[in-house]
Formats: sequence, structure tokens, C-alpha cells
Amino acid sequence: MQKQPKVAVIGGGSWATAIAKMLCVNLDEIAWYMRNGSAIDHLKAYKHNPNYLSSVEFDITKLRLTQDINEAVAYADYVIFAIPSAFLSRELEKLTVSLDDKIIFSAIKGIVPETFLIVGEHFHTTYAIPYHNIGVITGPCHAEEVALERLSYLTIACGDTKKARVMAKLLAGNYIKTKTSDDIIGTEYAAMLKNIYAIAAGIAHGLGYGDNFQSVIMSNAIREMKKFIKKVHRMKRNINNSAYLGDLLVTGYSVFSRNRMFGNMIGKGYTVKSAMMEMSMVAEGYYAVKSAYKLNQDYKAKTPIIDAVYAVLYEGKDAKSTFKTLTEQLD
Amino acid sequence: MQKQPKVAVIGGGSWATAIAKMLCVNLDEIAWYMRNGSAIDHLKAYKHNPNYLSSVEFDITKLRLTQDINEAVAYADYVIFAIPSAFLSRELEKLTVSLDDKIIFSAIKGIVPETFLIVGEHFHTTYAIPYHNIGVITGPCHAEEVALERLSYLTIACGDTKKARVMAKLLAGNYIKTKTSDDIIGTEYAAMLKNIYAIAAGIAHGLGYGDNFQSVIMSNAIREMKKFIKKVHRMKRNINNSAYLGDLLVTGYSVFSRNRMFGNMIGKGYTVKSAMMEMSMVAEGYYAVKSAYKLNQDYKAKTPIIDAVYAVLYEGKDAKSTFKTLTEQLD
Repeated sequence: MQKQPKVAVIGGGSWATAIAKMLCVNLDEIAWYMRNGSAIDHLKAYKHNPNYLSSVEFDITKLRLTQDINEAVAYADYVIFAIPSAFLSRELEKLTVSLDDKIIFSAIKGIVPETFLIVGEHFHTTYAIPYHNIGVITGPCHAEEVALERLSYLTIACGDTKKARVMAKLLAGNYIKTKTSDDIIGTEYAAMLKNIYAIAAGIAHGLGYGDNFQSVIMSNAIREMKKFIKKVHRMKRNINNSAYLGDLLVTGYSVFSRNRMFGNMIGKGYTVKSAMMEMSMVAEGYYAVKSAYKLNQDYKAKTPIIDAVYAVLYEGKDAKSTFKTLTEQLD
Repeated sequence: MQKQPKVAVIGGGSWATAIAKMLCVNLDEIAWYMRNGSAIDHLKAYKHNPNYLSSVEFDITKLRLTQDINEAVAYADYVIFAIPSAFLSRELEKLTVSLDDKIIFSAIKGIVPETFLIVGEHFHTTYAIPYHNIGVITGPCHAEEVALERLSYLTIACGDTKKARVMAKLLAGNYIKTKTSDDIIGTEYAAMLKNIYAIAAGIAHGLGYGDNFQSVIMSNAIREMKKFIKKVHRMKRNINNSAYLGDLLVTGYSVFSRNRMFGNMIGKGYTVKSAMMEMSMVAEGYYAVKSAYKLNQDYKAKTPIIDAVYAVLYEGKDAKSTFKTLTEQLD
């Protein structure tokens, strides 16, 4: 039998838990790092993560659980990061083990707030990881449906298609279909941008716009996303593939999306600060829109939705009148 | 003041009522034909349609209501058909007034079952109406949201752009934005095909597939729609415009869509016949899929979703196993 790749999952949230579940179908052992020691103890004792996807039962003999990120990284050839982008830098600061020769997969859908880079770019720029050792795991995929073993499709992108294929095989299973892509920049930007559009959909909903307008927002959003990504990294891609359009839709139409919920509160009249406090967590799209807006000062793509969300979240503009103006720019 | 165009609305359902409402914003008078005499009496007495969008109040001094289709057609320069495609032939048989020189707009989203043509083609073929006198009014637009005056976007397509602009102006208002297009074939096929994809989404939901898969179906559906329409009528079009993608999404994600509901019942195990009886109306997509499937015998576009829906509805294939096979063909 071929030697199994050594994989570490970094993160204790729902998406990390879903990925750990997928990997355990195909691997006899994975390393799994989470900050929360009591969650580890609970997992060891009761076979499930107490805080996220708690219905998922693990064969704990397969899990090398650790509260030490260095232990997990040292163990692995493939390191999958699945933590909120806001916490990435804090975790990486703890690293004493080198990332050289590690194959880094990002399952993070956002922007690193300190550098305003997508995760792949962050690793490339800050840790000099070559792009052929960087990959992206992208949806459309709610972690909750992985817990329920509902059929989901993942796209695994890597500059090195061989590594993409390895990861695609490790994640595939009865209810998970995987495909590979070489568009690491485009898929990761799409995953980040969709959170902005989910905030926009939420704001519109909060303001009282209906389903007709929701479909117009989504139709404009995918065209805007295409233009934006084309400026970032021009290559032949079908923006209607699942990794781009599918991922936009699963988030933009989800009432459970944190980003949509955050937008909804803004639309209903909460201030940005009070919406954040109310949610007790930050929606990824909040950082994403600042980064996208600033990047676009150079790119100059026509991005009325991003501009509107930025104006509301960062320039203190009134949501109602900003979206009224936005409706004139959509078609 | 410029002379107002004379417009007739043919149909008494919710979409016809929504269109009549839009027109009354811009016109002092419209002709409105409906079969149901008691609905006309009710409208005259109580200012609203008793059966559809009954919250909408009309200024009845603007309405030339008639139970005689010939009276309405004789009155008008622009005739808007907004009845289920299944009833179109029956209504047209009543015509003694000529359609020559009339400008025909179709607000019907379906296939004429007798000829298996989209409505524009049906008028062109059966009544020798030239394409420059044929137009299409298309969404994304639930009539119910027009009643609520929620912002909606319509696309008005006509071979003659001047006529498209006239109709676009007649329908536009505070909560209705209109744009024009010259793609009468593409927009009408999109409006027809989306009903098939809504049935597919419904079947999947009925079978227990979740939101992740729903987004994969929609992402595949828009790619499939693009391929199909390209075979029918090759021209430069952006399939992600509201008239195509938006219309697909508003139907495919709507729990109120008759087509999605019909599919859902099939997915839950109803036979086609019992689902139809239960709904006491026929979903447009039921006819559409037969036509699309047969047309595609010549076109040979790759249309796994259409094929699967056809197999379930017309070949008595089991929904569960057919959709299992379909999941292998999507990505």
C-alpha cells in the first residue's frame, strides 16, 4: 500500500471540523490543532467537538489532537489552515517549526487583516512559500451540510496540479465530490469577494428589498466578480463554475451566513459597531471589502456593489440612500 | 402631449394583473381582457382582482375591461399576452380580429404545447407576425413583489429596439426598472428553460439534497442554459445578465415557484400524475422540458439536467437513481 500523506488541520471551528471529518474517511491518521484545550479534552472523551458540528462522531484513534500548532505542523506534509483570517497572524506567530517544504492549503475564505492579502498571497509574501506549494480548498460548501453528509462539491486549486489531485483525493468521499483547478488566485479571491456580496444581499434584505432584487444583486455580483478577478489575475476561467458562482450563491442565499446576517443588521439600522457586538464575531466580508476597495483603487474595475458596501461600512454612509444609488447602477 | 400608445393586456392571472398595474402608472387607459366574467364584475365593483394580487387597487376609470378578446385586440397597437402557455392556442382560436400590424409582446414563460414553440416563434410561424413586431417581457420578477411595490428589474426584448423602448417606458415606474435587449429568442428560451431547472432544484430538494447541492445545480444550470441557447440562436449575449441568470435564480430559489413545488413533490415520491392533480395546475416546465429535450435531439448540446428531468417526467425513470447519475455529471 502506498504511504499515506501526512495531513494537519489547523483550527477548531465548523469548517475545520468538517474537513477533519472528510479526511478521516481516507486517512488512518491526521493531526488536528485547536487552541481550545477543553474542546480537545471533550473530543477525546466524547468523540465529538463540543462547539461545532457536534453531531459528528470521530474515530478518535485517528486523531492526533494537539494544542500546540508546532506539533501539528511538524507532523505534516500538507497543512490545511481553516481558521478565521482575523486569527491567522496570531497563530502563525506561534510557529517555531519552519514552513519550508510544507504544502499549505488554505480553507480560509477571507483577507488577512494585517496585510490585506488573500491567504495564499500572505503565505507567499510573508513566508516565501512558492506558489506550487500553495493551494486552496473552496466550496460551495456549508460545513453544517457536511455534518449531515449531504452531497457537496469542492474545488481544490493548486499551482501544482499533482498536489491538487492528492488533496482532492484525500477529501473525496461518498457525499463529497472534488475537482481540481489551477486558478489559486481566482478561486481564493472569489471566496473572499462572495462574502462582500453576501453582506450586500443582507443589507438589501434588511432595507426591505425582496427576492426580485436579490436575484438582480446576485446577477450583477457575478459580473462584478468576474471583472475584478480578471484585473487581479487574467486567465481563462469560467466564472459560472461552482467554485465561483456556486460559492457566491450558497453564501448569498443562505440565511445562516454570518456575512448576510451582518449586512441584514446594518440594513435594519444597526451601526457597524453595534452589529459586530451583537454578533460577537466579525464577518469575514468586513475585512474583505476594505481590501477589495483599496485594491480596486489601482485596478479600477467597475464595482458598484463593493463600493456601496465599503461606503456603508467604512465611510459612515447611510445604507438606505447608498443602496438607492446602487439600484441605479445595477441592471 | 404625445398620443399614448394603445395597449391591451390579455390574461387575468397574477402576472397579467402585475403588468396592468405597471401600465396604469403611465397610461390613462388600457384594455384588459380576461375570460372570467365574475372577476371583471368584481374588479368594477371593488377595484381589485378577486383571484390574483388582490391587494392591488386599480383606478378602474383607466380600465377597459372586457370578456371579449377581440375587443381588446381591436383596441390596441401593443398586445401583451400574459396567460399560461397551455391556454394560448385556445384563446387565439377565438380571434376574428387580425393580428397584422399589431405589436405582440409575450409575457408568457413557456412553450406552446401544441406546436412546441416558444411564444414568439409561435406567433411568427402560425400568424406570420414579423419578428420586428414581436417582443418579450421578462424578469426576474415575481408578480407578488410587484403588488408589494418592491423594486424589480424587467428586460424588454424586441427585434425593433424602438418598440422595445416604448414598452420599457410604459412599464417603468418608481419600483420597476426596465432595460431593453434585442435578444428575443435568447430571453424567451431562458425564461422557458429556467422552469426546467426549477423543477430540477425541486426534485433535488424533495430527494433530500441540501443547499450546497442547490448551488451546484444552479451553477451547472446556467452553463447548460448558455450552451443550449447558443445552439438555438448564436449571438453575443452575457448569460449572467438579469434576464437570464437573474430569472433563473429568482425561480430556482423560490419556494413559491410552481415549477419548484412540482419538482419537490416528484422528489418526495409523488407520481407525475398525482403531483399534477395535487397542484390542480400544470407547471410550465412540464411542457418546456419535453420541447427542450426534443429540440436538443438536433442541437446536441450537453444538457444533463434537462435530460434527467425529462427522464423522470416522461420516461417513468426513478427520480432517486436518475439524480444520483446526474450528480456524477455535474461539477
